[in-house]
Amino acid sequence: MTKTIFSDDFLLENDFAKSLFYDFAKDLPIIDYHNHLSQAEIDNNKNYSSIAEIWLNGDHYKWRAMRTCGIPENYISGNARDEEKFEKWAGCMPRLARNPLFHWSHLELKNNFGIDEYLNANNWKDIYIQCNQFLAKSTFSSQAILRNHKVELVGTTDDPLDDLKSHISIKNKNLDIKVIPTFRPDNFLFIKDAIEYRENIRRLEILTNIKITNLESLTAALSIRIDFFVEVGCKMTDHGITIFPSKAIWTKNDDEQLFKLIIGESNSIENRNGLTYHLLFNLFKLYREKSLIAQMHIGALRNTNTKMLSLLGKDAGVDSIGDDLQAYDLAVFLDDVNSIDSLPKTILYNLNPSHNHVFATMIGNFSESGVEGKIQFGTAWWFLDQKDGIEEQLNTLSSLSVLSTFIGMTTDSRSILSFSRHDYFRRILCNLLGTDMKNGLLPNDLNWIGKIVNDICYFNIKKYLQHNIIST
Amino acid sequence: MTKTIFSDDFLLENDFAKSLFYDFAKDLPIIDYHNHLSQAEIDNNKNYSSIAEIWLNGDHYKWRAMRTCGIPENYISGNARDEEKFEKWAGCMPRLARNPLFHWSHLELKNNFGIDEYLNANNWKDIYIQCNQFLAKSTFSSQAILRNHKVELVGTTDDPLDDLKSHISIKNKNLDIKVIPTFRPDNFLFIKDAIEYRENIRRLEILTNIKITNLESLTAALSIRIDFFVEVGCKMTDHGITIFPSKAIWTKNDDEQLFKLIIGESNSIENRNGLTYHLLFNLFKLYREKSLIAQMHIGALRNTNTKMLSLLGKDAGVDSIGDDLQAYDLAVFLDDVNSIDSLPKTILYNLNPSHNHVFATMIGNFSESGVEGKIQFGTAWWFLDQKDGIEEQLNTLSSLSVLSTFIGMTTDSRSILSFSRHDYFRRILCNLLGTDMKNGLLPNDLNWIGKIVNDICYFNIKKYLQHNIIST
Amino acid sequence: MTKTIFSDDFLLENDFAKSLFYDFAKDLPIIDYHNHLSQAEIDNNKNYSSIAEIWLNGDHYKWRAMRTCGIPENYISGNARDEEKFEKWAGCMPRLARNPLFHWSHLELKNNFGIDEYLNANNWKDIYIQCNQFLAKSTFSSQAILRNHKVELVGTTDDPLDDLKSHISIKNKNLDIKVIPTFRPDNFLFIKDAIEYRENIRRLEILTNIKITNLESLTAALSIRIDFFVEVGCKMTDHGITIFPSKAIWTKNDDEQLFKLIIGESNSIENRNGLTYHLLFNLFKLYREKSLIAQMHIGALRNTNTKMLSLLGKDAGVDSIGDDLQAYDLAVFLDDVNSIDSLPKTILYNLNPSHNHVFATMIGNFSESGVEGKIQFGTAWWFLDQKDGIEEQLNTLSSLSVLSTFIGMTTDSRSILSFSRHDYFRRILCNLLGTDMKNGLLPNDLNWIGKIVNDICYFNIKKYLQHNIIST
Repeated sequence: MTKTIFSDDFLLENDFAKSLFYDFAKDLPIIDYHNHLSQAEIDNNKNYSSIAEIWLNGDHYKWRAMRTCGIPENYISGNARDEEKFEKWAGCMPRLARNPLFHWSHLELKNNFGIDEYLNANNWKDIYIQCNQFLAKSTFSSQAILRNHKVELVGTTDDPLDDLKSHISIKNKNLDIKVIPTFRPDNFLFIKDAIEYRENIRRLEILTNIKITNLESLTAALSIRIDFFVEVGCKMTDHGITIFPSKAIWTKNDDEQLFKLIIGESNSIENRNGLTYHLLFNLFKLYREKSLIAQMHIGALRNTNTKMLSLLGKDAGVDSIGDDLQAYDLAVFLDDVNSIDSLPKTILYNLNPSHNHVFATMIGNFSESGVEGKIQFGTAWWFLDQKDGIEEQLNTLSSLSVLSTFIGMTTDSRSILSFSRHDYFRRILCNLLGTDMKNGLLPNDLNWIGKIVNDICYFNIKKYLQHNIIST
Repeated sequence: MTKTIFSDDFLLENDFAKSLFYDFAKDLPIIDYHNHLSQAEIDNNKNYSSIAEIWLNGDHYKWRAMRTCGIPENYISGNARDEEKFEKWAGCMPRLARNPLFHWSHLELKNNFGIDEYLNANNWKDIYIQCNQFLAKSTFSSQAILRNHKVELVGTTDDPLDDLKSHISIKNKNLDIKVIPTFRPDNFLFIKDAIEYRENIRRLEILTNIKITNLESLTAALSIRIDFFVEVGCKMTDHGITIFPSKAIWTKNDDEQLFKLIIGESNSIENRNGLTYHLLFNLFKLYREKSLIAQMHIGALRNTNTKMLSLLGKDAGVDSIGDDLQAYDLAVFLDDVNSIDSLPKTILYNLNPSHNHVFATMIGNFSESGVEGKIQFGTAWWFLDQKDGIEEQLNTLSSLSVLSTFIGMTTDSRSILSFSRHDYFRRILCNLLGTDMKNGLLPNDLNWIGKIVNDICYFNIKKYLQHNIIST
Repeated sequence: MTKTIFSDDFLLENDFAKSLFYDFAKDLPIIDYHNHLSQAEIDNNKNYSSIAEIWLNGDHYKWRAMRTCGIPENYISGNARDEEKFEKWAGCMPRLARNPLFHWSHLELKNNFGIDEYLNANNWKDIYIQCNQFLAKSTFSSQAILRNHKVELVGTTDDPLDDLKSHISIKNKNLDIKVIPTFRPDNFLFIKDAIEYRENIRRLEILTNIKITNLESLTAALSIRIDFFVEVGCKMTDHGITIFPSKAIWTKNDDEQLFKLIIGESNSIENRNGLTYHLLFNLFKLYREKSLIAQMHIGALRNTNTKMLSLLGKDAGVDSIGDDLQAYDLAVFLDDVNSIDSLPKTILYNLNPSHNHVFATMIGNFSESGVEGKIQFGTAWWFLDQKDGIEEQLNTLSSLSVLSTFIGMTTDSRSILSFSRHDYFRRILCNLLGTDMKNGLLPNDLNWIGKIVNDICYFNIKKYLQHNIIST
């Protein structure tokens, strides 16, 4: 077969790259520590009705691409039938050349269903039928799909108020696949709508039996929820941050305003930035105490299109990359937590690649004796999860920090077929390192460089999740 | 001939690249939808007195380069004779290796005059004489030069007060080349000097017979000028924006201050940002109604050198790339116009490549059913119109949006010989895609990828200019 | 030998690159115009006790890398013995693949001691002993090391209060190596701590016999110190700037506040930004008068980790890359100085590569007749001094300015073995240009391109240091 996405050597441009991939990466299990999969669908071991359901029902990447191609919304998020949507999507595919969806989709067709044709307006029907036949089988239930990809661990994304019912159910089943919750307290860190915020507080009070009247009691209530999450297996937390909050003093007056907001006597608190800063500070202390890892996803400009937001809600494909400054405030925050010996392991994800160098150097400022790669520059995220984006993240991390301590890829995906992105990432990683070997930039020693590949693909994240920092 | 800029295969590094270029790009006509050519010179079918007149009389790219080489200003913008200036320029040429002027200039010598030597201090005289002999011929009149390059359409840049005399004259001649005006209302959007602003308002009042006393009447007067531009063939508008204005309320008080400024009772209005925001908002509504395309050139830091500005005026080669934040305010503006269903087709040009990812994602937020690539991330502009800049724009656009919907290259040039930059762009585009084909990143299918080349080089912009959005 | 860092052709990927390196770069002397070497150690012609002393005693690059690998602080900045520290460092080395320290360290072992093995936990002891045997010889004294690398000139970094004792001593010895001081007035430009600032003022008063009570007398006192520096051989000045100060008015009131601060009646002055702006302005005028070159190192976020700062002081390896906006304020400052014909030759170093384009265009705004490359975009600095960083700086400079006028590499190093970084830089430069020649992007003419290599590696900086601007 000529050199295509369907050939075994896709993305592997020389013999070193191939050896690294086949001997040190390909067969490793997957630890997908951060994503947005549905724990209920995994718990129920669901079979999917069609490839359209998996691919087009909620995948904002594909929605955006279809819209840019001029497809009417009815065939995207609208009432058109699954089959019609798939036909439209297939029609777009040849025009998506060079977009990561072109590689992702064909890798998914190939890796899951053995299809090795490019999807288009002519062959869509055959491919649709083929995929759906596979999906109806027990070997393509949600759990089977995870197993097919050697997924060992799935880290979902969960609100502090979540009852974690499905996680508990999965845990009790003693599956060979771990599905663990991630504590994501965004709804308490940011007041976007005062009424919604109050409602969340009210629900938190009920769940924790704590009367919430100020920052302290809010922290205490969340601490109880963190304990519950930990009981169910939680190892990580997460935070979506547009602009990093500036350091602020939290005064008695701020506390009073927060109280008024919570009891409904006011619709706003003045210093929202202060609430974010101080609650985040308190939470980080708790994470450290409870040996949790903190994740921060920084720099997305979300819901830019008001019409689409009111029509479809969040995550509708109208988000983009922000350019806000982050370096100084982020450094101050990490320093503040570090100064009281409370900085947990932290993963910083960055959406604007022109900030890559800021992040890749920031992580080196707050190391800790005995902990390898304590602060991580997270893998290329969202829009950046494509060949150029992955290469840039790896190259910047390599030059400015220590690549061999990197905990590697996670999909951050909403689609259960998307584990092929680990395959994609591993090929890109091996190709980069193999090309350096070929060019004499790295030693001609497959075991040496292969160990680094091994560690980045699997062993580093395994260790990062297992080893607790021993607080002094 | 060895591999040089003078060989046919310049920039084409493999057989796929060559096939794409020769079979799908090379012979297509040129639609140069945005530039700064002189419509009068085209109308008069002028013959140029010398290559120095075309190259050195007002080309700020070359001026900057000569200054960096230490050439005295007299030989740049000063009183030295054309021949002396050309000699100095030729002497700089060997030192400009790796600057785009090195490629541009030699491509222009080769494509226009068949010269295949590198220009330098030894051969300048011969080359000067050769070029000038060509330029004296009728086959090198302004219109002939356009025809030699298969230019189908030229979009100039024009002030709302312009009488468009030359455009009308050209239109009446039924030339085979369209020369259409572009409505650029910068002088009304930005108050740099209150006296100049008032003078522009006064002239606008006379032209439109509208008494301008507030935002509404200012908008109404500009609307009349837009209609005039459209009558003469205008398809596009343009706006030069340093920092995108923040969303602002426009109050009765703002209106009163604007009134005072206009009648000369005050020298300033307080909220200049507000004027810019709201006038731009009103204009965008008009553009949509009148099926015009909006262009925005964002991020230049202009006229940084006060001495040179007072000596030579604007566009003297002392501008540079700004780093102001644009994402949030730009998103808010586009959303505001979109929220009332008034967003026209829009092209966003970006001068700071570290914002490429911001722009390439921004365009995906405001799509419209039935319109391919409605919002465009414009081609690499000004300082970025060089091999690295073009490749970065194409790569970022590819990864974050849909390359196949891109409307491609325009020169933005002040020099009538510069259409070779389309040749340059097309070679770079074909080389990128051909290299991907060779590496298995794109399908080994010349017709498939060739169609994308075709569309980007010619057909997309043709369609973009022709198809009106049907407002609902 | 296979292609490795130890082969002669390291980093040289084709025959053009090799010819350029061997015939035009390799044997040129080194002018290391900006670094942090110890003039006392050079004056004393010191022999170093061990490779650990040179490598690990104060090299914050290596400290950061070791910390990221989880090495306890005791083996980094702590009390562990030199040999123990070296063992730990050697143990990290295989994990630093792709970090510049991996290339730097092995180049230093090879170029200085002829060692051609990769350092690791097994061979560290042998290598340690070998290096130390060399270092004990007279052919490895500080001056001998400089001579081994053909270092012609060393520019150190010095406080205005420094007595320049060692510089004077070296000067009087008529060494074949020039060691010249650089005037770095940061302690007077920035008030970080009022008590320290006052103490510096007091010492300046004693040294200059000038009573300092306002901006004018402060400038006058510094002018005296500049004269002293010039007498000792100073050619350059330097300034470390996190955020470029905004243009500000300096009022009588500001002057009074400065006075109060200086005499100890107040602990702060309100407008610190104003002090920085105006003192810098005054200093630049003096530099121009006295034919000194100004350097500005812009964009570092220093001492982010308070615990480490109080433990180890500055330059402890807890600095990172900032993202503050610089373009507008920098342009205004340069324009202000230029407007009174007082802009000296200036070198702008940039720490955040996403600002490279801003800097590479900024330098073109303030040229001067008869001066080649008057304003320089300084070589890739600190974190960026690695293959990708160097290539990006060279590429951006090439596309946006005139590469052939570039004054090239300086180490900015604290380690006397680090001149191998010139070797590294020269290889990267020759490889870039050679690859362009191979691909037909540059003329196939070794003398032409070789002259550019010559100039960048040696002759441009030589001329830049020698030629004074003749003020008109």
